[in-house]
Amino acid sequence: MKAIGRTRWAIAEGYIPESSDPVSRQLESHETACMLNAGGRDAHVEITIFYADRDPVGPYRVTVPARRTLHLRFNDLADPQPIPRDTDYASVFVSDEPIVVQHTRLDSRPTALALLTTVAYADD
Amino acid sequence: MKAIGRTRWAIAEGYIPESSDPVSRQLESHETACMLNAGGRDAHVEITIFYADRDPVGPYRVTVPARRTLHLRFNDLADPQPIPRDTDYASVFVSDEPIVVQHTRLDSRPTALALLTTVAYADD
Amino acid sequence: MKAIGRTRWAIAEGYIPESSDPVSRQLESHETACMLNAGGRDAHVEITIFYADRDPVGPYRVTVPARRTLHLRFNDLADPQPIPRDTDYASVFVSDEPIVVQHTRLDSRPTALALLTTVAYADD
Amino acid sequence: MKAIGRTRWAIAEGYIPESSDPVSRQLESHETACMLNAGGRDAHVEITIFYADRDPVGPYRVTVPARRTLHLRFNDLADPQPIPRDTDYASVFVSDEPIVVQHTRLDSRPTALALLTTVAYADD
Repeated sequence: MKAIGRTRWAIAEGYIPESSDPVSRQLESHETACMLNAGGRDAHVEITIFYADRDPVGPYRVTVPARRTLHLRFNDLADPQPIPRDTDYASVFVSDEPIVVQHTRLDSRPTALALLTTVAYADD
Repeated sequence: MKAIGRTRWAIAEGYIPESSDPVSRQLESHETACMLNAGGRDAHVEITIFYADRDPVGPYRVTVPARRTLHLRFNDLADPQPIPRDTDYASVFVSDEPIVVQHTRLDSRPTALALLTTVAYADD
Repeated sequence: MKAIGRTRWAIAEGYIPESSDPVSRQLESHETACMLNAGGRDAHVEITIFYADRDPVGPYRVTVPARRTLHLRFNDLADPQPIPRDTDYASVFVSDEPIVVQHTRLDSRPTALALLTTVAYADD
Repeated sequence: MKAIGRTRWAIAEGYIPESSDPVSRQLESHETACMLNAGGRDAHVEITIFYADRDPVGPYRVTVPARRTLHLRFNDLADPQPIPRDTDYASVFVSDEPIVVQHTRLDSRPTALALLTTVAYADD
């Protein structure tokens, strides 16, 4: 299959709640960047995290193998440093191959569950 | 009415929870691809499912008749094989006529209900 | 302010639950098309509703005055005919002036509240 | 990092519920415009609020510093005047530098929590 997508993406919304009382890892509050690489070559992606009141941090480096999807939890990013909780952030993705990026947040702070998602902004 | 839409679409997010305790089929956890074919010719759509750690599966073939909408549950896809539960996936749609694709998830795992939706990524 | 937006929009997702037990009109289950006309001339919008298994119905006609927003509930559409409940549908908007269209669903079927929104698909 | 985004954005959906019974500021009902300025120059943004039945109000002026994100609550806008509660509105953002805008609503009216988000409409 021919590659589909773009090489530069941005997600302006970002926020990981401090505390949750999860039943399981699946239901723990988290933010996810869903990346799809439908093409025939591995995509090397560099993620930069932007904050409200300090310099950007990154790049975080991940690989989305050819013809695979990677659903990356921002909670799991560790190198160069974890993303602080209860802090506004935003993210930019730069890939060497076309990918599609979609953003999801699961919020389990209340007793009920809230989900949100949106396709990220793709730059030309 | 003139056709509206594109012929290649991608949804990077995909996840069908394993278990739910549905009151009804309407409230069972599911993921849906809403397709609209506003044009005058039937649209033949091939769907490919991408995974994190195995080869893509497909195509699944569906037809969206002229001037009709089809709200397809990923849960119902069976041929060539059902989509496993509790598994990250992504999807690509290739149509021979312009269509519009929107993605919805209803999550009834907790006692409350969570809905999410986004318009899919349309490739040029 | 200069006009912003497009003249053709599509929302592939559409579904109004049959029953809800609303506290108020604000919390009744509904689907809304939020339209913004930032320009200096009234926008005359024709809406067509598409179904899975019957011919499209329309046009429904609404006007978004110059420099105004109109948040239209699909529940309230009546002429030429109301939209049936518990039925999949999709919608296309054609305007004589550029507008922006965003789609929201509030679902109050369960005891909790679920909201979803997405910007509609804008055709070129 | 090279700037990413556009200079004109619109959010057709806007609504701040009148009353909520918040546990905390984090869980109070609110609408947020998440703005990302990934470029090297400060972005000066003018926001105009559109209503259903009165003239637009604005501009509200905010600055998104270079290489920063700003998650702005519509609830907090005060000059030239606050946004009334329980009122439909829409918003347009005009920036002198490319930015990315995403819209989020947290609704805590019921006992549970509802979140919605979408990337705003970016005009060419």
